[in-house]
Amino acid sequence: MTTLDVFRTPGSVAVVGATENPAKWGHWLARGAVAGEHRRRVHLVNKRGGQVLGRPAHPGLDALPEVPDLVAFAVPAPALAADVARAVALGVPGLLAITAGVEDEAAIADMIAASRTRLVGPNCLGLYDAPGELELAWGRFTPGALAIVSQSGQLGLELAGMAADAGIGVSRFVSVGSQLDVCAAELLADLAGHEATRVVALYLESFGDGERLLDALDLLRAAGKPVLLLTVGASGAARRAARSHTGSMTSALDVVDAACRTVGAVRVDTPAQLVDAAQVLARSAPVRGSRVAIVADSGGQGAVAADTAARLGLSVTEFPPEVRRELSKLLPAHAAVANPVDLAGAGEEDITTYASTPAVLADHEVADAVVLSGYFGSYGRDIPEHQAAESEVARAIGATATAHATPVVVHSMAQHTETIRQLRFSGVPTFSDIESALRAVTTARRFGQTPLPRARRQPAPKGLVPPREPGSGYRAARRLLADAGVPFPPAAEIAPGTLDPRGALRSLSAPVVLKADWLEHKSEQGGVVTGIQDPAALVAAYDDMVARLGPHRYVVEEMDRRADVVEMIVGARRDPSFGPVVMVGAGGVQAELTQDLALALTPCSPSTAHELIRRLRSWPLLDGWRGSRPVDVDALAAVVVAVSEVIAGRGDIAEIEINPVRVSPEGALAVDALVIPAPLDKAG
Amino acid sequence: MTTLDVFRTPGSVAVVGATENPAKWGHWLARGAVAGEHRRRVHLVNKRGGQVLGRPAHPGLDALPEVPDLVAFAVPAPALAADVARAVALGVPGLLAITAGVEDEAAIADMIAASRTRLVGPNCLGLYDAPGELELAWGRFTPGALAIVSQSGQLGLELAGMAADAGIGVSRFVSVGSQLDVCAAELLADLAGHEATRVVALYLESFGDGERLLDALDLLRAAGKPVLLLTVGASGAARRAARSHTGSMTSALDVVDAACRTVGAVRVDTPAQLVDAAQVLARSAPVRGSRVAIVADSGGQGAVAADTAARLGLSVTEFPPEVRRELSKLLPAHAAVANPVDLAGAGEEDITTYASTPAVLADHEVADAVVLSGYFGSYGRDIPEHQAAESEVARAIGATATAHATPVVVHSMAQHTETIRQLRFSGVPTFSDIESALRAVTTARRFGQTPLPRARRQPAPKGLVPPREPGSGYRAARRLLADAGVPFPPAAEIAPGTLDPRGALRSLSAPVVLKADWLEHKSEQGGVVTGIQDPAALVAAYDDMVARLGPHRYVVEEMDRRADVVEMIVGARRDPSFGPVVMVGAGGVQAELTQDLALALTPCSPSTAHELIRRLRSWPLLDGWRGSRPVDVDALAAVVVAVSEVIAGRGDIAEIEINPVRVSPEGALAVDALVIPAPLDKAG
Repeated sequence: MTTLDVFRTPGSVAVVGATENPAKWGHWLARGAVAGEHRRRVHLVNKRGGQVLGRPAHPGLDALPEVPDLVAFAVPAPALAADVARAVALGVPGLLAITAGVEDEAAIADMIAASRTRLVGPNCLGLYDAPGELELAWGRFTPGALAIVSQSGQLGLELAGMAADAGIGVSRFVSVGSQLDVCAAELLADLAGHEATRVVALYLESFGDGERLLDALDLLRAAGKPVLLLTVGASGAARRAARSHTGSMTSALDVVDAACRTVGAVRVDTPAQLVDAAQVLARSAPVRGSRVAIVADSGGQGAVAADTAARLGLSVTEFPPEVRRELSKLLPAHAAVANPVDLAGAGEEDITTYASTPAVLADHEVADAVVLSGYFGSYGRDIPEHQAAESEVARAIGATATAHATPVVVHSMAQHTETIRQLRFSGVPTFSDIESALRAVTTARRFGQTPLPRARRQPAPKGLVPPREPGSGYRAARRLLADAGVPFPPAAEIAPGTLDPRGALRSLSAPVVLKADWLEHKSEQGGVVTGIQDPAALVAAYDDMVARLGPHRYVVEEMDRRADVVEMIVGARRDPSFGPVVMVGAGGVQAELTQDLALALTPCSPSTAHELIRRLRSWPLLDGWRGSRPVDVDALAAVVVAVSEVIAGRGDIAEIEINPVRVSPEGALAVDALVIPAPLDKAG
Repeated sequence: MTTLDVFRTPGSVAVVGATENPAKWGHWLARGAVAGEHRRRVHLVNKRGGQVLGRPAHPGLDALPEVPDLVAFAVPAPALAADVARAVALGVPGLLAITAGVEDEAAIADMIAASRTRLVGPNCLGLYDAPGELELAWGRFTPGALAIVSQSGQLGLELAGMAADAGIGVSRFVSVGSQLDVCAAELLADLAGHEATRVVALYLESFGDGERLLDALDLLRAAGKPVLLLTVGASGAARRAARSHTGSMTSALDVVDAACRTVGAVRVDTPAQLVDAAQVLARSAPVRGSRVAIVADSGGQGAVAADTAARLGLSVTEFPPEVRRELSKLLPAHAAVANPVDLAGAGEEDITTYASTPAVLADHEVADAVVLSGYFGSYGRDIPEHQAAESEVARAIGATATAHATPVVVHSMAQHTETIRQLRFSGVPTFSDIESALRAVTTARRFGQTPLPRARRQPAPKGLVPPREPGSGYRAARRLLADAGVPFPPAAEIAPGTLDPRGALRSLSAPVVLKADWLEHKSEQGGVVTGIQDPAALVAAYDDMVARLGPHRYVVEEMDRRADVVEMIVGARRDPSFGPVVMVGAGGVQAELTQDLALALTPCSPSTAHELIRRLRSWPLLDGWRGSRPVDVDALAAVVVAVSEVIAGRGDIAEIEINPVRVSPEGALAVDALVIPAPLDKAG
């Protein structure tokens, strides 16, 4: 028995604050506790004594006939600390604190940390365990397959309600609240061995110790339990006010997505998307690819489904001739059999075609999921005499899906009918909206993709804090990154007031570029002059720049004149939960407009770097666009790996950015770079 | 009384094919017709006679005691033509033909065209009119505010079912089927005067005479009835296999969107999106801008709502201090009051805060829509004693929305509760999913935008068919477009075998570009050499190109060496329904990768051209990106207008494309162009 078992299958439960008033939390906790009386001893506590729900209410924990395994508190905020102290003193193993607005949370945390008592909450909405028949929360839960761990109680309840409506129900619910003791990561790890749980819904607003969370998600992956993550922070306010493009172009969500990819978890945008996907994951065989076969009652519904599938990145390709022939034998002459299939009234004439058509498609393995869209599910409702036949077909559809391990998903114009219930019971996910159905398939599909390797992070060694301005700037960044293996063009430095134009041009091949070393965004501030061919032009450019920008440090660098160059950006930054991350994207001055980038946790292997690059929208530009030669992607990947190693190895660096990295068929060349030190108090 | 009135309020109806068998269409038509017996005389016809639904069935139309106003046919396909002929002979004003699979549709069309009888169908699913209490279709309709005109009967029924579920119901339903006589455009025009209709849902797969359809949509706009259009053709198969980028980059949907913009109609992607938006349009005041105020029960639900709003292009900006102060007075200390508002239990303590909070926001006009998200709607369900109070608050929310003409939209964790019904009755749209709620607001918002001016199309005069290869190609395109006012660099032609390098370079300023005149995609095929500085280089480039590509016609052109150039694409093509369209987008060799373009029907005014350009994702590049000078957008707009005039004026041209148009602060310069003639049988 782990210490968390008291939150699943306590031998006895007490509710402190139990009341008859149905508008109070104490009422719902008491009602839920009492509903489990056939499983455990239940004690109700109300300081006024009397009766609650027809049972005697004890005046305090001390007055109970035993020390309960689990005590749930719905008490006023100022009373909580004393109540917890009492329970700890009694040696209660598990506490659940609903109470919100507690001012001395730190004191409670200290008390718990010094004891063997475990605490869920406070400021939470309770917990539920289906196999344990333990219900200590607002509302009533429908038992099922989805575990919900939520940092927002309300959002957790919304998920639970949607799961009930989708017919998958809830296996376990924990509103983690302030996480003073028991935290989300620990509860997730505990779910790996929770048999009733087939899919996990996780809502988090903050990730705390990212490594610990990823360890828990790894356990769930190993246990074959898909995790759907809902989090927030996409909107403007959540973006970091960062100095590099890397910072301003990547949101916290991009980092979360990169972290999810290492443990095979999938992030969704809304509660509805989460529960829709959970329905497919809980009921269906895995979705192994993006090919969908669409079977619709009408051309219109088939076409809307096909368009929606395409919009969501699924492919609706024409069936091969032998499949079309077989479907033609099954269906009336005017049916369409290419994909989408338009049954064109076939179902009306012979309801079994709703099962035989998917069976042909599954048999020929022409799709990774079959989507049935239209009227099926409504026959029994509209014509009660047809209910038995429709239910039988629903069972047959389920049997086909199971036998062929091919997901069959139904979008039906009907809801909550007997047939819909039969479909779900037979392992067929059903939806009342075609977009929800197809998006659920898309999300489920993402679980079929191999996760990126998860390399365990090493604590960054304390390095030298990079020298600050004016010693920082391009020259210093160049040196640091060149040492790590990033190629730069040959260059010469010009200390303030020491320009030797002939000397500079003797050691470098013209044309050259003159750069203001210390500027972070050189082009915008007039700190770059390109195409300098001779000493006179260099002097003129230098004098002009010094006049405009001041007598600081400048760099003269050979200009990259290679053909077929694609400008990329490579960057890195540090996330408070998930540590250093590396980024690659479409670069140049348009980088922020293009917003085409991919991100990974570090360390980043060459194969991960290659995968990031291939994921870019601009990948075709690198791979021989419209007759041009493919560029040296290995060289670009090597820059990504080098940058990832620098950020991972140097705790004193906050951000790195190389923009552009000019990549041609002959290799990659970094022509501007920026290294931003961590604030001194955060370095190390 | 228009001729379509018989499809709304006939004085008498006959159903041919009426039957007791509930699996047959004739049963449902008869049931529907009989349900309207209090409004009109109803006659059932079955060739076997006997009784149907307790009424005598007449053996044929001839046997009826009168000539009915409207006859609905659910008869076998081979029988339809003869039945229609009989009805026409009797002088029946209106016919509805459900029958599908009719082989002699053309014969029926001719028969109808030669008569005064009007026909809806065949191959349709029937019609319904709420105020007329006329129901001749499968299923039962819920009366309400949404009119549905659908080319797919099933999809129309799906919309009707969703409308019933959303509580807005259906004012009129017409499944137009094969449109042998009465077509969608005519029915739409008829809806302008249909009082019960507040919003129109239109599903079309083909648009026929685009001008006629737009006229009807203009009427609906003038009548203040928003039209939501659902159509298909986004997925691969629907894209034209076109020779120009313009063709391959623009889908039929882009043209439909451009057409919608001239009549203020809005296209949606799915039936659910349509009905969700219809709920807001039918219940709320107009959504005048994109600012939303979010009021949620918890931080989690507020944050998910804010992220979703941002993702959908809505803005969630912080409220000004005076609003935050006023909210602070209303709500508990730990509530968030900036936007999103987190009620943090305020609603639980005082349910009236669900109404008073939106009232403060509406009063201060800080948002174009207020979105309430969370538990509200569930109180009465969970605590029956609270139902009366919750219903009262629902009414107050509706009153606030009405009094301030500010849409208040509710996302509730509850569905189908008494409070949800009360909210809807009080004019408050409600949704069970936050994304649906916010997307509906976004769609409704689009109706507030001013439509692009709709210029009536002139029939294109017959022009000269552009000469074909080898006389076609760049030179011919250049001449045609230059005549229309598109600026090109100075150039010299080289007829096969006649290169005079010194002569060419005397009349042009080096560097020059050598181009293979006849190639449509010159760069990919090695048909462009740039940067030629002297006669020797020109000869070398010419000899090489002739050796590779053959002794055809070449062009020598001055190379555009201006600074701060942005490469754009301008194109045009001809749509079978909506006529010539013009397109502008991000150009150059990456145009197809960037997929950044905007499209308008022609003729296109300078102000429309400017609007298209501003709508591009790459607009910031033109407008002074990162310190560069803004380019000459007027010059680019002039190219768009010129191209639109050429395609509109020349019926013999199928496609035009200029890529790139190089736009700098000093003007626009076209440096490649392609004009594709219409196939001879389609020219004119």
